[in-house]
Amino acid sequence: MPKISQKGIAMPESPIRKLVPFAENAKKSGKRVYHLNIGQPDIHTPKIALDAISSFSNSVVEYSHSAGFESYRKGLSKYYQNIDINVSHSDLLITTGGSEALLFALNSCLDDGDEIIIPEPFYANYNGFSISSGVKVVPIATNIDDGFALPSIQEFEKLITSRTKAILICNPGNPTGYLYSKAELESLKEIVVKNNLFLIADEVYREFAYDGEKHHSVLNISGIENHAIVIDSTSKRYSMCGIRVGCIVSKNKDVISTALKFAQARLSPPTFGQIAGEAALCTPQSYFDKVSKEYVGRRNVLVNGLNSIEGVICPKPKGAFYAIAQLPVDNADEFAKWLLEEFSFEGETIMVAPAAGFYSTINSGFNQVRIAYVLNKDSLKKAVQILKEALKVYPGRVV
Amino acid sequence: MPKISQKGIAMPESPIRKLVPFAENAKKSGKRVYHLNIGQPDIHTPKIALDAISSFSNSVVEYSHSAGFESYRKGLSKYYQNIDINVSHSDLLITTGGSEALLFALNSCLDDGDEIIIPEPFYANYNGFSISSGVKVVPIATNIDDGFALPSIQEFEKLITSRTKAILICNPGNPTGYLYSKAELESLKEIVVKNNLFLIADEVYREFAYDGEKHHSVLNISGIENHAIVIDSTSKRYSMCGIRVGCIVSKNKDVISTALKFAQARLSPPTFGQIAGEAALCTPQSYFDKVSKEYVGRRNVLVNGLNSIEGVICPKPKGAFYAIAQLPVDNADEFAKWLLEEFSFEGETIMVAPAAGFYSTINSGFNQVRIAYVLNKDSLKKAVQILKEALKVYPGRVV
Repeated sequence: MPKISQKGIAMPESPIRKLVPFAENAKKSGKRVYHLNIGQPDIHTPKIALDAISSFSNSVVEYSHSAGFESYRKGLSKYYQNIDINVSHSDLLITTGGSEALLFALNSCLDDGDEIIIPEPFYANYNGFSISSGVKVVPIATNIDDGFALPSIQEFEKLITSRTKAILICNPGNPTGYLYSKAELESLKEIVVKNNLFLIADEVYREFAYDGEKHHSVLNISGIENHAIVIDSTSKRYSMCGIRVGCIVSKNKDVISTALKFAQARLSPPTFGQIAGEAALCTPQSYFDKVSKEYVGRRNVLVNGLNSIEGVICPKPKGAFYAIAQLPVDNADEFAKWLLEEFSFEGETIMVAPAAGFYSTINSGFNQVRIAYVLNKDSLKKAVQILKEALKVYPGRVV
Repeated sequence: MPKISQKGIAMPESPIRKLVPFAENAKKSGKRVYHLNIGQPDIHTPKIALDAISSFSNSVVEYSHSAGFESYRKGLSKYYQNIDINVSHSDLLITTGGSEALLFALNSCLDDGDEIIIPEPFYANYNGFSISSGVKVVPIATNIDDGFALPSIQEFEKLITSRTKAILICNPGNPTGYLYSKAELESLKEIVVKNNLFLIADEVYREFAYDGEKHHSVLNISGIENHAIVIDSTSKRYSMCGIRVGCIVSKNKDVISTALKFAQARLSPPTFGQIAGEAALCTPQSYFDKVSKEYVGRRNVLVNGLNSIEGVICPKPKGAFYAIAQLPVDNADEFAKWLLEEFSFEGETIMVAPAAGFYSTINSGFNQVRIAYVLNKDSLKKAVQILKEALKVYPGRVV
């Protein structure tokens, strides 16, 4: 029997999915489970996007251009121009979700054995894409005590080697919700210019910046036009994760022309997703205002609730819809399993994502969990109460 | 300015797209161009699939399971059982087109530097996916004189090294239209069992087998259950290339569980494509009978027409909707360009795909072109006449 690849063996299982069997058992036993583990929002997809799909009237669903519909690319360039990102439709190409945009960026910029520095904790699938591309992830530690702020230039420089080709950030961050300041992006500029690196920014949560804070894109930082690459997606912006449409954006012509070659190999991005994405460009600002207000309310319920529990630390995130909480437990993996298997409060329990899966440094984040505030406020209140009761009786509690 | 990767530089441009600027110029100059270069069929998508999409009534387009909707996987396993391929829904996972299925297969089975043997000419994008995965393509020559039949076991064994991990076939073949016999698959069995290799079969044209010939799947060959991996797609079967839904099928549990890890990293396949794919499972046999009859008619017009031109050789393909023709020209690349730039007959010309792009051995296929018979019979008749007239006056004609 032929053996699978070392690469395949090295691929991690998704940290947010490994508890699924325990959750299923909990449900079978009659418990209600609040899902705080995944970033699947309950927000409605804009009707304008769904209507465009149901109005499809061609008789053949053809391939589109490998870079995506030209009309959609032109529409997207206007979307960027409206938020002061000065790109034309030739500076971007449509991808099958942000996932494929990241894969194209890695393949276009890094070779087997090249290194990419990523502030940790980071979106766990960055590991998977790096393994697919043969790229080595070099984590740089951030700290819950300052809300996961960008490490200093000196800390980055300690990690830079002759194989370092890029820095990857997520802004606002999954799993931290951290929103980088303009000054932090200027620090990154200094590093990438001095060391001739690419700066890849996953900005799929761009619209989710709260408390009057402005989101700054790496494409807004002058002087790094040839370094900056943005990974984008319609999934969270319009709550249509299933359509699988994103894009890669860069003023570096070589990056886009190289990404196009990878795009040609897979022929085209999904037609119906592109139709939804193009129509969604006309989503009114009122939609985003309403969504933003909703998430701020949820965040406040969650974060204030968590910080009122003795021993729990949860920095207030300024963006996205995740928070990392440090819990007074010996091991958050065990605790998360115990919540599903052993615990219930009034017939209910919660499912959280142990944060260790978002760290690549061993033994990091072992007492942290990621909580996605994708449920309504009443459910979040209940979830906080359940966590509070659970921590009172958890056998592995650490004082 | 940071430099793009060596991998990115090595990625080939699509051979069927590099003539596009010349075709655009030809159209601008007022010529009508018959597109015989791409595999975009004009056949209607089954209405049942389009209706399912327009009936979507959820208010949120959510992620699906990373392996695809369970109901669709179950439906697909019945589709396979109906054609005597005995798989269950746990033996397959839904992918974003056949393209992603192939990428998952390569990543799951081969490491950087491992070798895959592919009969050439082959589907040009196999090169791109191999480069993405760091895999080395080892071509094995086939011959237009016997219609591109499988090379002998001895020829394969000459190429097998300690790094050989897999053989990849396309059956029926793009670009050759060649349909492998049961005996040929049994030869492949002998090779893969003896040398402990994976046998990856791209069977996306399964339904397009003509003249009463039966398509044999590698999943039908007993004794290679742990070696055989099928790449499949809905694109051609239902003429819905734009939905981007395919699947990977194998009885080898390690392959499917490893592919699932790669699938989890990219979250999920497209929701609307899956909806179309699942609905299309109920497409009546009459649809396929009609399509098959149409393609046989087109093939006969094309192949008989081509063989009636002096100096042209075109084996009659038994499957898919492509034919490779050898032309009495010095260089098919130049000829194809000349057809667009210099030639017209009654204000019309043709666009063909030079076959060199389907070979990885240098100087192979230089006097061949791939012709996709995706146009109606009247257009194909015209196209053949245009080719005949062109060959009369082409300055690079070889006697």
